[in-house]
Amino acid sequence: MRALLLHTNRFESRLVEPSSRPVAIEPEDPSGSNGKMTQCLSVLFCAEKDDATKQLVDLYHEILKTAEELGVQNILISPFVHLSSSIASPAKAKALYEQLLKKMAETHFAVASSHFGYHKSLLLDIKGHPGAFRYREFY
Amino acid sequence: MRALLLHTNRFESRLVEPSSRPVAIEPEDPSGSNGKMTQCLSVLFCAEKDDATKQLVDLYHEILKTAEELGVQNILISPFVHLSSSIASPAKAKALYEQLLKKMAETHFAVASSHFGYHKSLLLDIKGHPGAFRYREFY
Repeated sequence: MRALLLHTNRFESRLVEPSSRPVAIEPEDPSGSNGKMTQCLSVLFCAEKDDATKQLVDLYHEILKTAEELGVQNILISPFVHLSSSIASPAKAKALYEQLLKKMAETHFAVASSHFGYHKSLLLDIKGHPGAFRYREFY
Repeated sequence: MRALLLHTNRFESRLVEPSSRPVAIEPEDPSGSNGKMTQCLSVLFCAEKDDATKQLVDLYHEILKTAEELGVQNILISPFVHLSSSIASPAKAKALYEQLLKKMAETHFAVASSHFGYHKSLLLDIKGHPGAFRYREFY
């Protein structure tokens, strides 16, 4: 599992169309989160072939640690397939995404998410202080 | 070498302070490019430990191919260390960055760059069509 943890002024995504690849991908019901947040930690994460709950829990702890360090109250979770050439199956990626959202909902943070399974535009306004960009791998 | 090739409405970076890590990093003279471009292919690339000219040339060809496919005339080149946990030395990363800019200057594209060796804020406004986000690895 790979992830970019970004300290952002703004995260904003807009659905363009459901993804048709990889084959068998099941886009999320679009009626939930609106995919927008300000003054937040934006988590772009990429589930890989061999990922299981262990990697997800490691990411979860890294998110909490980073949010505390940065002093943010808002966390935006976005599936982001563009960090690896060895990505998980759509079914596994979706299950891990849903598992992460469930765990995040049990925290005291305000949590938003950006839809799974869509082509989306993305506006990222990332702060520039040391530590505003963090790349992490979990194996 | 790893890279994100993004079809963007806007790329805008603002220098915050010179990087002090990794040790021995030599930030670029900031008087050159202003780190801004619109309607462009934004190339965020990360030089890794074992990279040499071969990987850079592969990236260069991928950039030209992608720009032709997307029909863009503007290309923004940005060093981006946050795509790997096995990054090149600062000296090698800077040399590869300068080599890429030199090759790009010989093309018919309008080329801008975002400074090497700084903490920077970053605004990315990325289009949402299929193919607007491309992750590539060159080994």
